[in-house]
Amino acid sequence: QLYNLRKGYIYMGIVNLKTGEEKKLKAEELRTAAQDMRGLALISIHAARSGHPGGSLSIMDIAAALFLNEARLSPDDDKWKERDRIFFSAGHKAPALYAGLVKAGFYSPEEMVTLRQLDSPFQGHPHAPRLRGVEVSSGSLGQGLSVAAGVALNGKLEGKSYRVYCIMGDGEQQEGNIWEAAMNAGHYKLDNLCAVLDKNRLQIDGWVEEVMNIDPIADKYRAFNWNVIEINGHDMESILSAFKKARETKGKPTIIIADTVKGKGVSFMENVAGWHGVATKDIEQLKTALDDVGSSVFNFEHARELLKVSDNYRTSKKKEVKSTLPSFNDNFWWNSGGNMHVEMEPTRIGFGRCLASIGDDPRIVTIHADISNSIKISDFEKDNPERKKRVFNSGIAEQNMMVLAAGFALEGKIPITGTYGVFASGRPWDQIRTTICYDNLNVKIAGAHGGVSVGADGATHQALEEIALMNILPNMNLFVPCDSVETKRLSEMAILDIHGPAYIRYAREATPVVTDEDTPLIFGKANVIRFRAERPEFKDAFETALGEDYRNESEDLTLIACGPMVAEAMRAAYILKKMYNLETRILDVHTVKPLDTEIIIRAAEETGTVITCEEHQTGGFGNIIAGTILKANSRINRDKPLVFDMIGVNDRFGESGDPWDLMIRFKLTAEHIAERVKKLIG
Amino acid sequence: QLYNLRKGYIYMGIVNLKTGEEKKLKAEELRTAAQDMRGLALISIHAARSGHPGGSLSIMDIAAALFLNEARLSPDDDKWKERDRIFFSAGHKAPALYAGLVKAGFYSPEEMVTLRQLDSPFQGHPHAPRLRGVEVSSGSLGQGLSVAAGVALNGKLEGKSYRVYCIMGDGEQQEGNIWEAAMNAGHYKLDNLCAVLDKNRLQIDGWVEEVMNIDPIADKYRAFNWNVIEINGHDMESILSAFKKARETKGKPTIIIADTVKGKGVSFMENVAGWHGVATKDIEQLKTALDDVGSSVFNFEHARELLKVSDNYRTSKKKEVKSTLPSFNDNFWWNSGGNMHVEMEPTRIGFGRCLASIGDDPRIVTIHADISNSIKISDFEKDNPERKKRVFNSGIAEQNMMVLAAGFALEGKIPITGTYGVFASGRPWDQIRTTICYDNLNVKIAGAHGGVSVGADGATHQALEEIALMNILPNMNLFVPCDSVETKRLSEMAILDIHGPAYIRYAREATPVVTDEDTPLIFGKANVIRFRAERPEFKDAFETALGEDYRNESEDLTLIACGPMVAEAMRAAYILKKMYNLETRILDVHTVKPLDTEIIIRAAEETGTVITCEEHQTGGFGNIIAGTILKANSRINRDKPLVFDMIGVNDRFGESGDPWDLMIRFKLTAEHIAERVKKLIG
Repeated sequence: QLYNLRKGYIYMGIVNLKTGEEKKLKAEELRTAAQDMRGLALISIHAARSGHPGGSLSIMDIAAALFLNEARLSPDDDKWKERDRIFFSAGHKAPALYAGLVKAGFYSPEEMVTLRQLDSPFQGHPHAPRLRGVEVSSGSLGQGLSVAAGVALNGKLEGKSYRVYCIMGDGEQQEGNIWEAAMNAGHYKLDNLCAVLDKNRLQIDGWVEEVMNIDPIADKYRAFNWNVIEINGHDMESILSAFKKARETKGKPTIIIADTVKGKGVSFMENVAGWHGVATKDIEQLKTALDDVGSSVFNFEHARELLKVSDNYRTSKKKEVKSTLPSFNDNFWWNSGGNMHVEMEPTRIGFGRCLASIGDDPRIVTIHADISNSIKISDFEKDNPERKKRVFNSGIAEQNMMVLAAGFALEGKIPITGTYGVFASGRPWDQIRTTICYDNLNVKIAGAHGGVSVGADGATHQALEEIALMNILPNMNLFVPCDSVETKRLSEMAILDIHGPAYIRYAREATPVVTDEDTPLIFGKANVIRFRAERPEFKDAFETALGEDYRNESEDLTLIACGPMVAEAMRAAYILKKMYNLETRILDVHTVKPLDTEIIIRAAEETGTVITCEEHQTGGFGNIIAGTILKANSRINRDKPLVFDMIGVNDRFGESGDPWDLMIRFKLTAEHIAERVKKLIG
Repeated sequence: QLYNLRKGYIYMGIVNLKTGEEKKLKAEELRTAAQDMRGLALISIHAARSGHPGGSLSIMDIAAALFLNEARLSPDDDKWKERDRIFFSAGHKAPALYAGLVKAGFYSPEEMVTLRQLDSPFQGHPHAPRLRGVEVSSGSLGQGLSVAAGVALNGKLEGKSYRVYCIMGDGEQQEGNIWEAAMNAGHYKLDNLCAVLDKNRLQIDGWVEEVMNIDPIADKYRAFNWNVIEINGHDMESILSAFKKARETKGKPTIIIADTVKGKGVSFMENVAGWHGVATKDIEQLKTALDDVGSSVFNFEHARELLKVSDNYRTSKKKEVKSTLPSFNDNFWWNSGGNMHVEMEPTRIGFGRCLASIGDDPRIVTIHADISNSIKISDFEKDNPERKKRVFNSGIAEQNMMVLAAGFALEGKIPITGTYGVFASGRPWDQIRTTICYDNLNVKIAGAHGGVSVGADGATHQALEEIALMNILPNMNLFVPCDSVETKRLSEMAILDIHGPAYIRYAREATPVVTDEDTPLIFGKANVIRFRAERPEFKDAFETALGEDYRNESEDLTLIACGPMVAEAMRAAYILKKMYNLETRILDVHTVKPLDTEIIIRAAEETGTVITCEEHQTGGFGNIIAGTILKANSRINRDKPLVFDMIGVNDRFGESGDPWDLMIRFKLTAEHIAERVKKLIG
């Protein structure tokens, strides 16, 4: 068994499948359990150095009641057919789900404090295949109610008596998928389904009421043919009674609308939007939080012990990962020596700078989808409050955001929208296709958080498919800038110089700054970058030219890259020169669509070896390059056949972990590129 | 000016921009105008031989009131800044929109009767860039309210007095995007927005109330902070008064919920779901319909005249298109001679046959999204009513459909979902990614209507991007069968033999049957097809082998194809042999993911010339093949560099027209393939 019983933790094992015995904690015990779960969640988030305390704390009393009283579960068998099914649609509240599983006897706290670290089953957002007790993965909002409805429908079809629970957030109610599911559950009279709305009234961008009001939410669900129960979500007796009423309600699904406090139980977190998604900043702050919560089990003393467990895990994982990095005689890692220093800055900063800089243009309007500061779209108005009248909110409703933007574009505005890449490209794909691209409307889309370097949030938030999704669309212009400076300049170009749809893919983490304002940059034209000699500043060690101005130096190979992989390709060129005296031509393909085909073909012809580098599903970018080259192959004049390979994420989802550890894990570093080159060309 | 004033049509020119004069028809005149518009719509749909009479007729009285009284428009300038904006969110009601534009003086009836034909600005679903007076393209349901909200928000921002109207259907209310937009419009108090719900109570699959009940719809909109006005949608005074009340309502958007009759005005169409999307079947039926409607202008006599105009347009277009078909000494077109006869059958039939055949398996459940008969998913229960308990409806709610299916898959079922390819792949892409693929759930997706051969419905319904969208997803299995027989067999494989997500892409139109039950077929393995000799039956002229069993014949070239392009490739091989004595190896890549890479590489090595053929955006399939080959290029042993090219739709949207005319227009025929081969290898 994965769980253990030491230290006096209250392990439930709610249903003992051997004896049939059921344990159900009473209200007073549940209050204590919720304290413990809050303590454990706070410690785990602190240990992870990131995570979502706000919503985890607001739902915790309900989670305690659900896992330790209402639901029939057994840690003996997480697939027990008669179990009740619990869905956390708001996947960022994972710490509450995980704490519930720990308290119910599925796991030990020592396991949970590996939260958000590499290879931990406790991913940043729940990943069901890795963690028994989790019914389905979540993290992309608004999907859980549909999956719960499917499971409830199946229960009806099979005549099963299990009940289905679905925890949702209030910001999440802005997602259209929720209302599709609500209509469905009402239509099918799914009285075996009980949804819980954690109405803590805050979303990332601020008060739900101000960002995108969901009220009167009870009336909405009633109009969608649901039974509605409204309660204080921190009053244990009310919670238990609501679950009971829901169980007794026939002919309709029930939603318990729970009035809650975001950050509940921690004085400085309560009702503060800023605590949506950050960890306590230091050990003192954790202590204050734990003291506020008042768990006798997960107190500060115990926290220190658990943090050690977590740190040990981190240390050993980091060592393990590092040991897989191809090694050379020298250490070429970023900023590892006195020479070749590089500045690191997130590319998203460049997007923000662009908006701040050009935002006086009265044609520009921005449309937010709740993570405005994270993706830096809010830099538009941050220091320019007079622009706020040109800022609109769609809430967490990406489909609406895109088509709303289309409406502004029809009227001559330049609407700028954005969210994380998965939600900016895939969630509203048909809207981008049919309303924006088909009419060639002047909508600009910022796709943030492209790549695995997103880090601890995990696979649901690591966009690895947008290049494929956007490149295939007629009329789309697709930009993948390599650093914060190029992001700023390309964003300006995309917004002001190009008429028509544009998608700008940029990353979350700080990545090397390898260009400056003087670097050549022309829409649709690739740059050639060449390593020249070691310099104190990494950037100065390279020479960059517009592809069409570049004169062939008959290099040994070409690395064709986009996004932050350009910097890795540059470092690989440095390694290859120093270690093997190989000369590398690097193409920075910042504009993926339209593509600078001639420069790519020339590079293939002139160097004979081409490797594509993408922080993306391998081939999304690489196959486009391959198609370009192969179509020209018969006019490429070489003695030997062209050598070609691709580096990228190999047809798998991302995962939680430190961004740079993930770059190593997914074999995306300069060292991996250099190693691959060496294997290819001997 | 495009419009003319002959024949005594009532051309409005509602606002004369020179004189400022405004014409507004009174109720009695509007009733007559609506009769005329119904007549014109029926004639146009008859002339087009396809289209959507049901919903066009139910909204016609409102359309007449809107275009000829309520809205301020001017045919003098369709971009007149002060105009009111009219959005038809339900794009299939295009005939009502077009008839409104004709009556308002934008176009002549002679222009409108080119409806749904090649190059007509009157596309199957409205395409704004081609038809002045149309504000935005539509056809993919549920997007119009968002774009209308965007335009209304812009009006508020700019202090403009224009009003924004949005026509929606009742089935469309099942789309989540609608509720995102409704929430948005309520939140922003868009009192310059007036939505109209054409509540005719029928959707394609039947009564809305039974398929996916949207009621109480008035309560829903009230709960989304809208002003609701309920009227009889065929009572002109009520319509005018509702528009007036909407104009006078401040602080809220208004929705007019119009109780209407689908097919209104034509006795045999009223309240019959079957008249959603078909034309009158013969001239007698048209006469009955026109007599029922009773327009004095667009009567049967006039109809004959307009049908002639339409037929002349068709004849000349067909001639024009045919003249672009590469010609050879012989006519190789399908079934053009006594020899090489081929049977034609839509691939979707094969999908239906599969479901009928394997449907007794109790694990199978199907989930419909309103076009069940069109995509043949309803063949599952058609002759097996006892299976109906395993049939579920999501209504027109593709996101919910996918995640609902995921719920069934979690419980051990094999859920089968489906809709047209755009809506099966792109609309719910994030749901497919995050809930289905990330957890490797056993959900089967039927993506119908892949390719331009969809025909008259036009670009919004012609899926040309699904291969790119689905191939990039980890864990996805992607099938693109070539004919109805292979579709049946591959569907069985996808459903019963493969565990995990599967997407099956199939076409709408009848396409050549080129395989039979004895043709080799293995999951993940490509077939080799070779032309041997002319035969009475086309199919018998070819030999098919499993790729790995095939012995090299050092052919002159390879055509790598998927879907109905396999048949075109086969016919191209026939042409190439007969005309130029070239031997062609054809690969039928029915499984695109996982890909049979070795057979592809071998073909490149053994024949030296490869051309990919896809009825899809060029490269979606071709670049995958290019990447596969180019990665192996350095181990391909040839004297001359490999010749490679791709055939497909070149980065543009589809359009309305006869399926085979479109195949020619988009250069996808065997003749085009043969011509390209000849150019490439001389």
